[in-house]
Amino acid sequence: MSYDDSNIFARILRGEIPCQKVFEDDHVLAFNDINPACPVHVLIIPKGPYRSITEMAAQGKDEELAALLRALGTVAGMTGVADTGYRVISNTGDHGHQEIPHLHFHLLGGRPIGRMVSRVDI
Amino acid sequence: MSYDDSNIFARILRGEIPCQKVFEDDHVLAFNDINPACPVHVLIIPKGPYRSITEMAAQGKDEELAALLRALGTVAGMTGVADTGYRVISNTGDHGHQEIPHLHFHLLGGRPIGRMVSRVDI
Repeated sequence: MSYDDSNIFARILRGEIPCQKVFEDDHVLAFNDINPACPVHVLIIPKGPYRSITEMAAQGKDEELAALLRALGTVAGMTGVADTGYRVISNTGDHGHQEIPHLHFHLLGGRPIGRMVSRVDI
Repeated sequence: MSYDDSNIFARILRGEIPCQKVFEDDHVLAFNDINPACPVHVLIIPKGPYRSITEMAAQGKDEELAALLRALGTVAGMTGVADTGYRVISNTGDHGHQEIPHLHFHLLGGRPIGRMVSRVDI
Protein backbone atom coordinates (compact mmCIF):
# COMPACT_ATOMS: atom_id res chain seq x y z
CA MET A 1 0.00 0.00 0.00
CA SER A 2 1.31 3.44 -0.84
CA TYR A 3 0.64 6.84 0.67
CA ASP A 4 -2.90 8.11 0.01
CA ASP A 5 -2.66 11.86 -0.52
CA SER A 6 -6.40 12.36 -0.06
CA ASN A 7 -6.13 11.94 3.72
CA ILE A 8 -7.15 14.95 5.80
CA PHE A 9 -3.64 15.81 6.97
CA ALA A 10 -2.36 15.84 3.39
CA ARG A 11 -5.22 18.19 2.55
CA ILE A 12 -4.36 20.44 5.51
CA LEU A 13 -0.73 20.50 4.35
CA ARG A 14 -1.87 21.57 0.87
CA GLY A 15 -4.04 24.31 2.37
CA GLU A 16 -7.26 22.72 1.08
CA ILE A 17 -8.63 22.44 4.61
CA PRO A 18 -7.97 25.11 7.25
CA CYS A 19 -6.29 24.43 10.57
CA GLN A 20 -5.51 26.38 13.72
CA LYS A 21 -1.76 26.48 13.28
CA VAL A 22 0.47 26.33 16.34
CA PHE A 23 3.90 25.93 14.73
CA GLU A 24 5.46 25.41 11.33
CA ASP A 25 8.92 25.01 9.89
CA ASP A 26 10.39 23.52 6.70
CA HIS A 27 9.61 19.95 7.73
CA VAL A 28 6.80 20.07 10.29
CA LEU A 29 3.30 21.45 10.81
CA ALA A 30 1.57 21.56 14.22
CA PHE A 31 -2.08 22.49 14.73
CA ASN A 32 -4.81 22.14 17.32
CA ASP A 33 -6.89 18.95 17.33
CA ILE A 34 -10.46 19.91 16.37
CA ASN A 35 -11.80 17.54 19.03
CA PRO A 36 -9.42 18.18 21.93
CA ALA A 37 -9.14 15.58 24.67
CA CYS A 38 -7.20 17.95 26.96
CA PRO A 39 -6.80 21.74 27.39
CA VAL A 40 -3.71 21.42 25.20
CA HIS A 41 -4.10 18.92 22.35
CA VAL A 42 -1.86 19.60 19.39
CA LEU A 43 -1.22 17.36 16.39
CA ILE A 44 2.34 17.45 15.10
CA ILE A 45 3.00 16.04 11.64
CA PRO A 46 5.85 15.78 9.18
CA LYS A 47 5.35 17.50 5.84
CA GLY A 48 6.74 14.46 4.04
CA PRO A 49 4.33 11.72 2.85
CA TYR A 50 4.93 9.16 5.60
CA ARG A 51 2.15 7.00 6.93
CA SER A 52 4.03 5.87 10.01
CA ILE A 53 7.13 6.16 12.13
CA THR A 54 8.25 2.96 10.42
CA GLU A 55 8.11 4.62 7.01
CA MET A 56 9.67 7.89 8.13
CA ALA A 57 12.47 6.03 9.91
CA ALA A 58 13.21 4.10 6.72
CA GLN A 59 12.80 6.89 4.17
CA GLY A 60 13.23 10.21 5.97
CA LYS A 61 16.36 12.31 6.14
CA ASP A 62 18.01 13.03 9.47
CA GLU A 63 16.99 16.69 9.28
CA GLU A 64 13.33 15.73 8.85
CA LEU A 65 13.41 13.28 11.74
CA ALA A 66 15.24 15.75 13.97
CA ALA A 67 12.79 18.52 13.08
CA LEU A 68 9.79 16.39 14.01
CA LEU A 69 11.13 15.39 17.41
CA ARG A 70 12.39 18.93 18.08
CA ALA A 71 8.94 20.31 17.22
CA LEU A 72 7.41 18.26 20.05
CA GLY A 73 9.59 20.18 22.51
CA THR A 74 8.96 23.49 20.80
CA VAL A 75 5.19 23.03 20.92
CA ALA A 76 5.33 21.96 24.58
CA GLY A 77 7.09 25.24 25.31
CA MET A 78 4.76 27.36 23.17
CA THR A 79 1.64 25.92 24.77
CA GLY A 80 2.88 26.36 28.33
CA VAL A 81 3.02 22.69 29.30
CA ALA A 82 6.79 22.16 29.22
CA ASP A 83 7.07 22.72 32.97
CA THR A 84 3.78 21.22 34.16
CA GLY A 85 4.12 18.10 32.02
CA TYR A 86 2.59 16.47 28.99
CA ARG A 87 2.16 13.23 27.11
CA VAL A 88 3.15 12.46 23.54
CA ILE A 89 1.40 9.63 21.69
CA SER A 90 1.61 8.23 18.19
CA ASN A 91 -0.70 5.46 17.02
CA THR A 92 0.38 3.29 14.10
CA GLY A 93 -1.53 0.71 12.08
CA ASP A 94 -4.42 -1.57 13.02
CA HIS A 95 -3.31 -2.55 16.51
CA GLY A 96 -2.62 1.09 17.33
CA HIS A 97 -6.00 2.10 15.85
CA GLN A 98 -4.41 4.69 13.60
CA GLU A 99 -7.26 6.66 12.05
CA ILE A 100 -5.54 8.95 9.54
CA PRO A 101 -2.82 7.42 7.34
CA HIS A 102 -0.33 10.24 7.78
CA LEU A 103 2.14 10.02 10.68
CA HIS A 104 1.08 12.24 13.58
CA PHE A 105 1.98 12.78 17.18
CA HIS A 106 -0.59 13.92 19.73
CA LEU A 107 0.77 16.30 22.35
CA LEU A 108 -1.55 16.39 25.36
CA GLY A 109 -1.32 18.57 28.44
CA GLY A 110 -2.83 21.33 30.49
CA ARG A 111 -3.93 19.10 33.34
CA PRO A 112 -2.89 15.76 34.84
CA ILE A 113 -3.31 12.88 32.44
CA GLY A 114 -4.38 9.36 33.49
CA ARG A 115 -1.57 7.52 35.19
CA MET A 116 0.66 5.44 32.93
CA VAL A 117 -1.27 4.90 29.74
CA SER A 118 0.71 1.77 29.22
CA ARG A 119 -0.82 0.21 32.30
CA VAL A 120 -4.42 1.29 32.12
CA ASP A 121 -5.29 1.53 28.46
CA ILE A 122 -4.40 -1.83 27.01
CA MET B 1 16.75 21.19 38.52
CA SER B 2 19.51 19.39 36.70
CA TYR B 3 19.81 15.85 35.43
CA ASP B 4 20.09 13.26 38.24
CA ASP B 5 22.49 10.59 37.04
CA SER B 6 21.41 8.13 39.74
CA ASN B 7 18.15 7.34 37.91
CA ILE B 8 17.70 3.75 36.79
CA PHE B 9 18.07 4.45 33.07
CA ALA B 10 21.36 6.27 33.67
CA ARG B 11 22.52 3.24 35.63
CA ILE B 12 21.45 0.90 32.82
CA LEU B 13 23.36 3.09 30.34
CA ARG B 14 26.47 2.83 32.53
CA GLY B 15 26.08 -0.95 32.72
CA GLU B 16 25.51 -0.91 36.48
CA ILE B 17 22.11 -2.56 36.06
CA PRO B 18 21.48 -5.22 33.41
CA CYS B 19 18.82 -4.95 30.74
CA GLN B 20 17.41 -7.14 28.01
CA LYS B 21 18.78 -5.17 25.08
CA VAL B 22 16.75 -4.95 21.88
CA PHE B 23 18.74 -2.35 19.95
CA GLU B 24 21.68 -0.02 20.41
CA ASP B 25 23.55 2.53 18.34
CA ASP B 26 25.78 5.53 19.10
CA HIS B 27 22.92 7.63 20.44
CA VAL B 28 20.16 5.25 21.54
CA LEU B 29 19.54 2.21 23.71
CA ALA B 30 16.35 0.11 23.54
CA PHE B 31 15.48 -2.65 26.00
CA ASN B 32 12.48 -4.63 27.18
CA ASP B 33 10.32 -3.15 29.95
CA ILE B 34 10.67 -5.41 33.01
CA ASN B 35 6.94 -5.08 33.68
CA PRO B 36 5.47 -5.34 30.17
CA ALA B 37 1.98 -4.06 29.54
CA CYS B 38 1.80 -5.70 26.10
CA PRO B 39 3.47 -8.66 24.33
CA VAL B 40 5.90 -6.12 22.89
CA HIS B 41 6.87 -3.38 25.36
CA VAL B 42 10.23 -1.80 24.65
CA LEU B 43 11.73 1.31 26.25
CA ILE B 44 13.75 3.47 23.88
CA ILE B 45 16.04 6.08 25.40
CA PRO B 46 18.68 8.56 24.27
CA LYS B 47 22.16 8.05 25.63
CA GLY B 48 22.44 11.78 26.33
CA PRO B 49 21.41 13.12 29.77
CA TYR B 50 18.02 14.54 28.86
CA ARG B 51 15.11 14.42 31.28
CA SER B 52 12.49 15.25 28.68
CA ILE B 53 11.67 15.88 25.06
CA THR B 54 11.76 19.56 25.97
CA GLU B 55 15.38 19.30 27.11
CA MET B 56 16.51 17.12 24.23
CA ALA B 57 14.81 19.43 21.73
CA ALA B 58 16.65 22.40 23.22
CA GLN B 59 20.05 20.82 23.79
CA GLY B 60 20.36 17.79 21.52
CA LYS B 61 22.10 17.64 18.17
CA ASP B 62 20.15 16.81 15.04
CA GLU B 63 21.88 13.45 14.76
CA GLU B 64 20.82 12.48 18.28
CA LEU B 65 17.22 13.53 17.70
CA ALA B 66 17.09 11.74 14.36
CA ALA B 67 18.61 8.60 15.84
CA LEU B 68 16.00 8.46 18.60
CA LEU B 69 13.04 8.79 16.25
CA ARG B 70 14.61 6.40 13.75
CA ALA B 71 15.12 3.84 16.52
CA LEU B 72 11.38 3.75 17.15
CA GLY B 73 10.88 2.52 13.59
CA THR B 74 13.81 0.14 13.79
CA VAL B 75 12.51 -1.45 16.99
CA ALA B 76 9.00 -1.75 15.55
CA GLY B 77 10.51 -3.70 12.67
CA MET B 78 12.75 -5.86 14.86
CA THR B 79 9.91 -6.84 17.19
CA GLY B 80 7.50 -7.74 14.39
CA VAL B 81 4.88 -5.08 15.04
CA ALA B 82 5.64 -2.71 12.15
CA ASP B 83 2.90 -4.26 10.02
CA THR B 84 0.33 -5.12 12.67
CA GLY B 85 0.60 -1.76 14.41
CA TYR B 86 1.88 -0.25 17.61
CA ARG B 87 1.68 2.74 19.89
CA VAL B 88 4.47 5.04 20.97
CA ILE B 89 4.11 7.02 24.21
CA SER B 90 6.33 9.40 26.12
CA ASN B 91 5.31 10.83 29.49
CA THR B 92 6.89 14.07 30.65
CA GLY B 93 6.75 15.82 34.00
CA ASP B 94 4.10 15.86 36.71
CA HIS B 95 0.99 16.05 34.51
CA GLY B 96 2.35 13.23 32.35
CA HIS B 97 3.22 11.20 35.48
CA GLN B 98 6.79 10.70 34.35
CA GLU B 99 8.34 8.20 36.75
CA ILE B 100 11.99 8.10 35.73
CA PRO B 101 13.73 11.41 35.02
CA HIS B 102 15.43 10.29 31.83
CA LEU B 103 13.55 10.76 28.54
CA HIS B 104 12.03 7.48 27.35
CA PHE B 105 9.56 6.30 24.75
CA HIS B 106 7.39 3.25 25.34
CA LEU B 107 6.79 1.18 22.20
CA LEU B 108 3.76 -1.07 22.70
CA GLY B 109 2.40 -3.72 20.36
CA GLY B 110 1.71 -7.36 19.74
CA ARG B 111 -2.04 -7.09 20.10
CA PRO B 112 -4.72 -4.42 19.65
CA ILE B 113 -4.29 -1.55 22.10
CA GLY B 114 -7.22 0.35 23.66
CA ARG B 115 -8.81 2.68 21.16
CA MET B 116 -7.46 6.22 21.05
CA VAL B 117 -5.59 6.71 24.30
CA SER B 118 -6.20 10.38 23.92
CA ARG B 119 -9.95 9.86 24.31
CA VAL B 120 -10.16 7.26 27.04
CA ASP B 121 -7.24 7.86 29.33
CA ILE B 122 -7.52 11.48 30.36
